[in-house]
Amino acid sequence: MLRAVHDIRLVGRGDRTETTVVDVGGVPVGGRDIIVMAGPCAVESEEQLVSTAVAVKRAGARILRGGAFKPRTSPYSFRGLQEEGLRLLGEARRVTGLPVVTEAMDTRHLDLVCAYADMIQIGSRNMQDYTLLEEAGRTRLPVLLKRGFSSTIEEFLLAAEYIASSGNDRIVLCERGIRTFETSTRNTLDLNAVPVLKRWSHLPVIVDPSHGTGLWWLVPHMARTAVAAGADGLLIEVHVNPQEALSDGEQSLRPEKFERMMNDIRPVALAMNRGW
Amino acid sequence: MLRAVHDIRLVGRGDRTETTVVDVGGVPVGGRDIIVMAGPCAVESEEQLVSTAVAVKRAGARILRGGAFKPRTSPYSFRGLQEEGLRLLGEARRVTGLPVVTEAMDTRHLDLVCAYADMIQIGSRNMQDYTLLEEAGRTRLPVLLKRGFSSTIEEFLLAAEYIASSGNDRIVLCERGIRTFETSTRNTLDLNAVPVLKRWSHLPVIVDPSHGTGLWWLVPHMARTAVAAGADGLLIEVHVNPQEALSDGEQSLRPEKFERMMNDIRPVALAMNRGW
Amino acid sequence: MLRAVHDIRLVGRGDRTETTVVDVGGVPVGGRDIIVMAGPCAVESEEQLVSTAVAVKRAGARILRGGAFKPRTSPYSFRGLQEEGLRLLGEARRVTGLPVVTEAMDTRHLDLVCAYADMIQIGSRNMQDYTLLEEAGRTRLPVLLKRGFSSTIEEFLLAAEYIASSGNDRIVLCERGIRTFETSTRNTLDLNAVPVLKRWSHLPVIVDPSHGTGLWWLVPHMARTAVAAGADGLLIEVHVNPQEALSDGEQSLRPEKFERMMNDIRPVALAMNRGW
Amino acid sequence: MLRAVHDIRLVGRGDRTETTVVDVGGVPVGGRDIIVMAGPCAVESEEQLVSTAVAVKRAGARILRGGAFKPRTSPYSFRGLQEEGLRLLGEARRVTGLPVVTEAMDTRHLDLVCAYADMIQIGSRNMQDYTLLEEAGRTRLPVLLKRGFSSTIEEFLLAAEYIASSGNDRIVLCERGIRTFETSTRNTLDLNAVPVLKRWSHLPVIVDPSHGTGLWWLVPHMARTAVAAGADGLLIEVHVNPQEALSDGEQSLRPEKFERMMNDIRPVALAMNRGW
Repeated sequence: MLRAVHDIRLVGRGDRTETTVVDVGGVPVGGRDIIVMAGPCAVESEEQLVSTAVAVKRAGARILRGGAFKPRTSPYSFRGLQEEGLRLLGEARRVTGLPVVTEAMDTRHLDLVCAYADMIQIGSRNMQDYTLLEEAGRTRLPVLLKRGFSSTIEEFLLAAEYIASSGNDRIVLCERGIRTFETSTRNTLDLNAVPVLKRWSHLPVIVDPSHGTGLWWLVPHMARTAVAAGADGLLIEVHVNPQEALSDGEQSLRPEKFERMMNDIRPVALAMNRGW
Repeated sequence: MLRAVHDIRLVGRGDRTETTVVDVGGVPVGGRDIIVMAGPCAVESEEQLVSTAVAVKRAGARILRGGAFKPRTSPYSFRGLQEEGLRLLGEARRVTGLPVVTEAMDTRHLDLVCAYADMIQIGSRNMQDYTLLEEAGRTRLPVLLKRGFSSTIEEFLLAAEYIASSGNDRIVLCERGIRTFETSTRNTLDLNAVPVLKRWSHLPVIVDPSHGTGLWWLVPHMARTAVAAGADGLLIEVHVNPQEALSDGEQSLRPEKFERMMNDIRPVALAMNRGW
Repeated sequence: MLRAVHDIRLVGRGDRTETTVVDVGGVPVGGRDIIVMAGPCAVESEEQLVSTAVAVKRAGARILRGGAFKPRTSPYSFRGLQEEGLRLLGEARRVTGLPVVTEAMDTRHLDLVCAYADMIQIGSRNMQDYTLLEEAGRTRLPVLLKRGFSSTIEEFLLAAEYIASSGNDRIVLCERGIRTFETSTRNTLDLNAVPVLKRWSHLPVIVDPSHGTGLWWLVPHMARTAVAAGADGLLIEVHVNPQEALSDGEQSLRPEKFERMMNDIRPVALAMNRGW
Repeated sequence: MLRAVHDIRLVGRGDRTETTVVDVGGVPVGGRDIIVMAGPCAVESEEQLVSTAVAVKRAGARILRGGAFKPRTSPYSFRGLQEEGLRLLGEARRVTGLPVVTEAMDTRHLDLVCAYADMIQIGSRNMQDYTLLEEAGRTRLPVLLKRGFSSTIEEFLLAAEYIASSGNDRIVLCERGIRTFETSTRNTLDLNAVPVLKRWSHLPVIVDPSHGTGLWWLVPHMARTAVAAGADGLLIEVHVNPQEALSDGEQSLRPEKFERMMNDIRPVALAMNRGW
């Protein structure tokens, strides 16, 4: 039982037995199909983005992800192509037909993101940036809300409640690993969270095994595992050349590995009565 | 890459491609079959134990678990039936034919445990009790080594190395949840650990979702999920009357729920090319 | 040794042996005097604020703290008086002469906060809100940067580097407790951080034992302890009537307890060759 | 308020206002004097031990520490001189007159440790080794109980209750750092724990900044800080040649640094109305 259950109102399960289906540019998240969102951590160039987009679409991805505004621990790291990155995401959508999800790090980015994207991502570091949550709640786009890397499940649901109570109930929750003492993986993917979130909320839940592990070879294992946990979708970092990626290369899959991952997941998805 | 990889010698994967199969009273752990070990947290009475043993066997469990020596946080809690509990485990084995795994908390328990059980369990709190590890390494029984609730994967493998370097390589590793900041579950089940352990070690790996969640309704979800992560088996607490259990009632399944869990897992096991 | 030490440039210690002194409305933070910043968690009314301000000044506080924009876990909690709160802070400064520090949660708050306050606080939840850090770096006010409750010391210094690299080097660091498995206190106050921060940075470091413990009776003990750790100042929540506080009542001191705390700290401050 | 407060009986504070004084070979722990226990992590040779013992005594240490049985993460690390180490501790006591504290890792070590030492240390990894706690509770020696590196304060007090309820109330509690996400220090020294332990228990509390930081240069800072937190004593690793130490060299002080540390602490001890 969550302590703050009385404040988890609009996103709380209540007496709804079904998961709410959130439409993302025509793709239903929370329905029978496992929805895979894939693409590079950061948009780096038109060629990198479009070739990745074409490849992930061919392998079965339904939504394109890619960062134009990148939250980076050091101010001296590559911070994203900003508006140019958004423009390239629009271009990749035009070529592939895939809807686009991309991160907004600040209330001032929202108009721009809304102009180009089909879904606003709110990142782990901003999960408790309450003004951003409220402003995202005032947009017309669905929101992909990532769990703070040290946020409890209760805090996560209350962050979603901020968005919903501002007027936008098109929210997809994303478990992406939490910070623990373990050092052999970048984060500890908390798959307990998937059924716990579903018990307390009617929102769809997806899993990001790329950040949840930090290790490319571990991503396919945990993608498959997340599907068995009941995830409604996956968020996967794919890069045509991980060794030269400007961020998160260590956890990015090459397109051919991504394709093999998609094939490996299928039997487990079917065993869960899910499709794609 | 683990820092201490050069000290993970006998239990390290080396160039072995197969998982080592550990025989537990005739039951092969680490082979094609998912081996389910089930039974009560603590042995409480002959009736409780035998009825549970019969029920879990019927549902498909292959090994009976039950505690005679119970590590309890408070000295004023029920601490187990001690030798009488071991005797009852022997009786339940005679009735059902199931091999028995039970915990030894101290070097002085080992002779007694070896006289009655088919497998020695070393619990989470004792994972770094090095004299116990070494003495278990000098017995003729297989050892079920549970991960310390705050131990890294590296420390876990080095604890297994203690047993192996004392002469006993019949070791099964068990992920059982780690201590984190999250409070809605008793522990955070670390399923990243399953493929990571398998990458670095040739030993079989099982998962304990009862301690890994602390919530009975969550156990079947995470049992199924663990199988998708590649677990070779499961350790499940089952009690005929959880509300009157002398320990861990909140995380124990009734026999009929256990049976339903076993049925639910089957499709995922088959999708993983595993049987039982 | 920190991994990212080469990116900790402007806030890094380099060859400076002295702590940088940051002037906050005429009060020097980082010099010989221990600077105590005290006041209510949230500004609630003129009477509450002014009476608290007068009391903390009399007891030796040199800067008034008080929240007008309050980050709250639930959207249904009291969120602060917003601009009216800022106006009241200005009024309390006029009455007492104490400079004022208050939190900005979003880039859009900065102009308003700058219009009323002497120091901008960036809270724990926003420590990695990089656009806020950069905009704060473009203001003319000193910044009180609180450590993220799950941020490493390295991430904390890199967040300060964001501010400095945007043009503002008037930064005071504040340790305020980290999230751990311990539940008897709200957070675990990490006093290792004080000398570690001072080894790697020339910035002044203060400690917030109110959030670092969450328990009013523990605050004076840890305030005294923080001074012995080498803190240049303290941030203390004081409320005239904690039982009716709209937030954080459990960790707020009454004015008379605050005064006693100030007296108790004095001998330790003198033992450290510090004054006030 | 601790949940299990009703089980913290013999070690609970109850209506006692004074800290219990535990006599360790004639040295009172828990009285007005801050008692410093110092010496090498591991006993390595007679020369190393005796020269260190003489040096720490001259600098003001009142009890000699040194490990004969060493718990080591890897089975291939140096594990201590065992009985020969105990014999050397006896020799160092004969030369210096300092009482000796040393670790027992297993019930089978207790007789031997009791034959040579003045105080039994139960280490962090064994804090929940309940059979060891009970057997230590049946000896005639005082017990130094170190907090498990991932144990809550409540679990720590319940571990002490195990010893007391077995008949031995001569217990000294030792905070030695907890495992958190922070990586710039080996552990996070939890100084909140000192006043919290004293609120709930009448037992003396000491602090081990050597393990609590893992960094020799940080030890004197945190030793001083621990005294301000109200610690009744300190446990400090000192080695004549840290670079060649067989264990924990990185956190060991040379004798001359230890002496300087003792001088630096004195003013804070006096400010706390403590002496040595």
